Amino acid sequence: MKYNQVWQARAIRPDGCSEWFSAQVPGNVQYDYGVYMGWGNIHYNDNSTLWRETEDYTWEYRTVLNYACKEGEKAVFVSKGIDYRFDILVNGKVCLSHEGMFSPVEADLSDAQPGSELVVRIYPHPKREDADEGCNQADHSAKAPVCYGWDWHPRLLVSGLWQEAYVETRDAGFIRRCEPFYTLNADRTHASLRFETEADAEVEITLFDPDGKEVGKGHAFEIDHPRLWWCNGQGKPELYTYTARTASHEVKGHIGFRTVKLVMNKGGWDPLPGFPMGRNVAPIQIELNGRNVFAKGSNWVNPDVFNGRIDYERYETLVTLAKDAHMNIFRCWGGSGTHKEMFYELCDRLGIMVWAEFPLACNCYPDDPHYLEVLEQEADAIIRMLRPHPAVVMYCGGNELFNNWSMMTDQSQALRLLNKKCYDLDKDRPYLMTSPVLGMGHGGYTFWNPNTNQDVFTIFQNAHCTAYTEFGVPNMTDLENLKKIIPEDELFPIEAKGSWKLHHAFEAWGELAWLCPDGMQHFSRGKLDTIEKMIAQSNWMQCEGYKAIFEEARRQAPYCSMAINWCYCEPWITASGNSLITYPVQPKPAYYAVQNSLRPVLASARIPRFDWKKGEVFHAELWLLNDSVECANHTIKVSIRANGEEYELLTWETGEVAMNTNKIGPTINWKLPEWDADRFTLVLSCGDASSEYTLCFRPDNEW
Amino acid sequence: MKYNQVWQARAIRPDGCSEWFSAQVPGNVQYDYGVYMGWGNIHYNDNSTLWRETEDYTWEYRTVLNYACKEGEKAVFVSKGIDYRFDILVNGKVCLSHEGMFSPVEADLSDAQPGSELVVRIYPHPKREDADEGCNQADHSAKAPVCYGWDWHPRLLVSGLWQEAYVETRDAGFIRRCEPFYTLNADRTHASLRFETEADAEVEITLFDPDGKEVGKGHAFEIDHPRLWWCNGQGKPELYTYTARTASHEVKGHIGFRTVKLVMNKGGWDPLPGFPMGRNVAPIQIELNGRNVFAKGSNWVNPDVFNGRIDYERYETLVTLAKDAHMNIFRCWGGSGTHKEMFYELCDRLGIMVWAEFPLACNCYPDDPHYLEVLEQEADAIIRMLRPHPAVVMYCGGNELFNNWSMMTDQSQALRLLNKKCYDLDKDRPYLMTSPVLGMGHGGYTFWNPNTNQDVFTIFQNAHCTAYTEFGVPNMTDLENLKKIIPEDELFPIEAKGSWKLHHAFEAWGELAWLCPDGMQHFSRGKLDTIEKMIAQSNWMQCEGYKAIFEEARRQAPYCSMAINWCYCEPWITASGNSLITYPVQPKPAYYAVQNSLRPVLASARIPRFDWKKGEVFHAELWLLNDSVECANHTIKVSIRANGEEYELLTWETGEVAMNTNKIGPTINWKLPEWDADRFTLVLSCGDASSEYTLCFRPDNEW
Repeated sequence: MKYNQVWQARAIRPDGCSEWFSAQVPGNVQYDYGVYMGWGNIHYNDNSTLWRETEDYTWEYRTVLNYACKEGEKAVFVSKGIDYRFDILVNGKVCLSHEGMFSPVEADLSDAQPGSELVVRIYPHPKREDADEGCNQADHSAKAPVCYGWDWHPRLLVSGLWQEAYVETRDAGFIRRCEPFYTLNADRTHASLRFETEADAEVEITLFDPDGKEVGKGHAFEIDHPRLWWCNGQGKPELYTYTARTASHEVKGHIGFRTVKLVMNKGGWDPLPGFPMGRNVAPIQIELNGRNVFAKGSNWVNPDVFNGRIDYERYETLVTLAKDAHMNIFRCWGGSGTHKEMFYELCDRLGIMVWAEFPLACNCYPDDPHYLEVLEQEADAIIRMLRPHPAVVMYCGGNELFNNWSMMTDQSQALRLLNKKCYDLDKDRPYLMTSPVLGMGHGGYTFWNPNTNQDVFTIFQNAHCTAYTEFGVPNMTDLENLKKIIPEDELFPIEAKGSWKLHHAFEAWGELAWLCPDGMQHFSRGKLDTIEKMIAQSNWMQCEGYKAIFEEARRQAPYCSMAINWCYCEPWITASGNSLITYPVQPKPAYYAVQNSLRPVLASARIPRFDWKKGEVFHAELWLLNDSVECANHTIKVSIRANGEEYELLTWETGEVAMNTNKIGPTINWKLPEWDADRFTLVLSCGDASSEYTLCFRPDNEW
Repeated sequence: MKYNQVWQARAIRPDGCSEWFSAQVPGNVQYDYGVYMGWGNIHYNDNSTLWRETEDYTWEYRTVLNYACKEGEKAVFVSKGIDYRFDILVNGKVCLSHEGMFSPVEADLSDAQPGSELVVRIYPHPKREDADEGCNQADHSAKAPVCYGWDWHPRLLVSGLWQEAYVETRDAGFIRRCEPFYTLNADRTHASLRFETEADAEVEITLFDPDGKEVGKGHAFEIDHPRLWWCNGQGKPELYTYTARTASHEVKGHIGFRTVKLVMNKGGWDPLPGFPMGRNVAPIQIELNGRNVFAKGSNWVNPDVFNGRIDYERYETLVTLAKDAHMNIFRCWGGSGTHKEMFYELCDRLGIMVWAEFPLACNCYPDDPHYLEVLEQEADAIIRMLRPHPAVVMYCGGNELFNNWSMMTDQSQALRLLNKKCYDLDKDRPYLMTSPVLGMGHGGYTFWNPNTNQDVFTIFQNAHCTAYTEFGVPNMTDLENLKKIIPEDELFPIEAKGSWKLHHAFEAWGELAWLCPDGMQHFSRGKLDTIEKMIAQSNWMQCEGYKAIFEEARRQAPYCSMAINWCYCEPWITASGNSLITYPVQPKPAYYAVQNSLRPVLASARIPRFDWKKGEVFHAELWLLNDSVECANHTIKVSIRANGEEYELLTWETGEVAMNTNKIGPTINWKLPEWDADRFTLVLSCGDASSEYTLCFRPDNEW
């Protein structure tokens, strides 16, 4: 039996303790403290900086224990995770000390009784003493580093009882653990399933098929022709369910039968140029149930600065939006750490594959005994939490660790340790040391590179990667949301300071990103002299930019096997940024553009660049992209629209295009007329659906 | 007490058993059988093919046990390794079954007595059924694959009691294990040493310093200012020794205090070109005792086709030759597996670092449960044997596994397992998945590429690798040795068949390698119409080629950190090949050329190509290479010799060149006269020493 508790918290500040204030669990104590202090909405203006003074506070949660123990029961305080270093005290005596936010903890309450006081004392955030302010401060800890500040995340050091916490009374029938393991035969027509249980009583397990029909009872099952778990777009994410019962306790869970490997990308074994010869690329092609699947999706970051406050509804809305956008993967970026288990359950249920990174990002995590010990403990907990989830298709050491802003290497003991832990606990799930590894690419993150005068159309058509696992194009947030974060007197004209800067419009990435006013103006015929014009321009570019990259990555299949943009959601309302969704769950126009580009069967145009001049020959290669599991066969009509007129260019009969295959068609070549317009639209009609690309047009030489 | 045994062996052939014949232990039963059958010298003509019929034989060794057990002793049969799958039978009863040649085995002789018969029954060589003949047949086994045939190794499947084997009587004082472990503080001024022992009696350990002076007794020692183990050229390979004693047993060993890491090569963190961005190179710079060391050495392969017959004297001669050639590293190539422990002891003593590969090479070793189980057992044994040796500076999964002739990847479970085992048992020693990894280069293996008309001078000056860990230039074996392998009537003119082909002169590597008559003739003014002329030409090219590559690799330091040629020794007399030493221990002319190029302080010329025409401006960049631990400061006189005349070109005062540093000097430019010669020599005199480069000269246009 579980008993939720009523919690209070207080800050132990240099000048003494605050009063006790009401605290939500799960949650973050910093949020509760902000409410207590009346600091207002964190999104608005520079409110977020108010929390800076709390960084080195010690915090205490307390509850007067509320539970009832029957004869033969014992009581345990349980949490799925407490952030980050803490003691648990019962009646003033420390009964447990722990470092690490991802490992579950249990405190025996033998010495307590209902009415006893339980305190969780949380120590200040880890900060390496000689580190500059930023994520480097967390480079000796296994804390998710994002809250130390990122180019799209305010500095806001959170901690607390971020996962559920309760008192549980347990009798002899308590099931401490019940975990399914299965093997599939070579052609996946037979599954051997067994359960490992830990309990002092007999556990009865009942297995149900995905329709809820009982399959049988026992601790081992042989299942002929198991219904397989597939990711979105490749089949149904079939889940078997089970209940494990004793006289007094029941636990439930689900199983998705599937195999997953990372196999060499098609063409990845092509001969290397002459001697001295290096190595071939690293494999990053996902093979799900024996089938190579093109991974299309987005980088998942913590959807709230207060990670403890994210609830099921938020996760469900966000994951459902990904499914609706034809995505099949989230790369769960290491900087944000691992998430609440319900997120992975949702991904199981909705068919979104998960690339699960350990909580390392952009730092050089050291070969330090204490760090390695905490990391091992945390990795153990993370792997045990993730491994029952069919959606989790790979582990990864963390983000961009083999790049010169991190300076970790293949020899780093943390990454060798993570390999070892994954091998020991879950060796059939792939493990990648970091992203990117050889062959893969991260970036770029803006629409246009002013140094080379290349836009993302050109840049990605000249790239040749096995996987694009980060790329981004920023937009500017809509006016309604901007008004929630920028004081009215700062709203326009926009200046590179104050709220705009704090909300990442400037100096987040170089001088001018994420707003990138130079790029916006470069592709605008008229002066962007109102905020509405700027917003519209930024959305145009974000939509066309994202379409160009996602579709180019798909066209580069099968050598390319992944298109995963940076990023999906955002943890607070940014003024400008690369996400597809505005905080908390509002799709941007680019979300719908990407949704269109990720349709399983897509008529797609490879357009060499975004901007065109009058009189030039416009050219574009036609493709039919098919990552559905059906054969496609379409008539594609190509036209160009500008200035209210429509010009029909050609019709392409694609013929049959097999499942998970692309086909190249003709190239259209068409001399652009002398429109008085700043844009034109290429339209590929394909049955009821169409793909539209609205491109920049320069009718005169000034522009 | 150890009792050597007298052994006999027999072949269990399809047509029945052979007689018992005398067998040497350690050794290979195939050698003994050859003697018994009167097959003669394996090197001569096609004698080696006689062994083909034995490939699928089962073999039995037998001995009538000879030992004496005192009261309280028990007897154990011990071997350090038996190749490959075998049973041990005592009085006809199987008492042990085992797969794997690298793990030591012990068979309890409780049921035996002196005079009992002990049989080792060895099963046929592992051969994957559907594999073509060659090393692929061994791709599901942990057997060293080289004996299945390589481009420089005859197919000769050996097995047997290749390591020492004896009966040992043990009483309660027997020391089952005594192993030292130490840590050094950050600046290596203090060592904490502890011993792990396994024995039923009290073990007394006495430690001695490198001069043999007793340091103390105990199981743990704190040593201030320990004398460090250094590789050849960087300091002394200081070894502490210890004895561990009980009343009845004594074991001895040594300890070399040192730290070793693979750190990023200088320049390896330089920014990568634009987005999408991959990863930086993998580190391969050896940091020994905090000092970056340029690794110069050679690839060690099994020095005998009959690997069991190699004895201490052979190892000592070969390792001493490497030391004398200023080498400091052997890459122990995975195809030849791990060697007898005395080899590593010699490397400890002589200061030759060892890059130790697991027995995987050029195959795709599968994610197969049985294979992984055997590999884990073998890796465990190999790591435990190697880890006390200071010379061993790194483990490596095996040879060229990430290339398309192997097709293993970062995801291969065998390599993930090896990484895990190394981490578990010896985590402070680097582990490399394979060679090459990103940044490194293997090859080329011939002097001249006829397709590009580039020689190794040009090829390596245009390469930019972190490490050159395989490269080769072939020569032709001297006449005396050729006569040992080629029947007189085949000797000349040379034809691409028979003995020449069997001894790797043709079709070993493409059509014409390793003899490469096309390349030899290309750089010869006159027709190579005698075998003496051919031998001389091949030695000229091998010497100049090896000098060019070794010196270029040194000049590319510190980005480049290794020059390790293919290969050092050879397992039998080849007709042509890349080794520096002719079987068994005879240095080739190229050995001396390499010895000169590896002198710690070397005046070196970067000459853009091997062949020059009359009237051209010859140019060469001057360098002083210093990988000694002293500051160098020299006067270098540059001259050219041809047709008996000497032309003085310039004198370069190098000024001070710090230890382990190179310095570039002036470039000489000099118009070549109209000599009637086919070669000229550039001479850099530097005190008593000189560096000489004899280059090809074309006095007319026909040639």
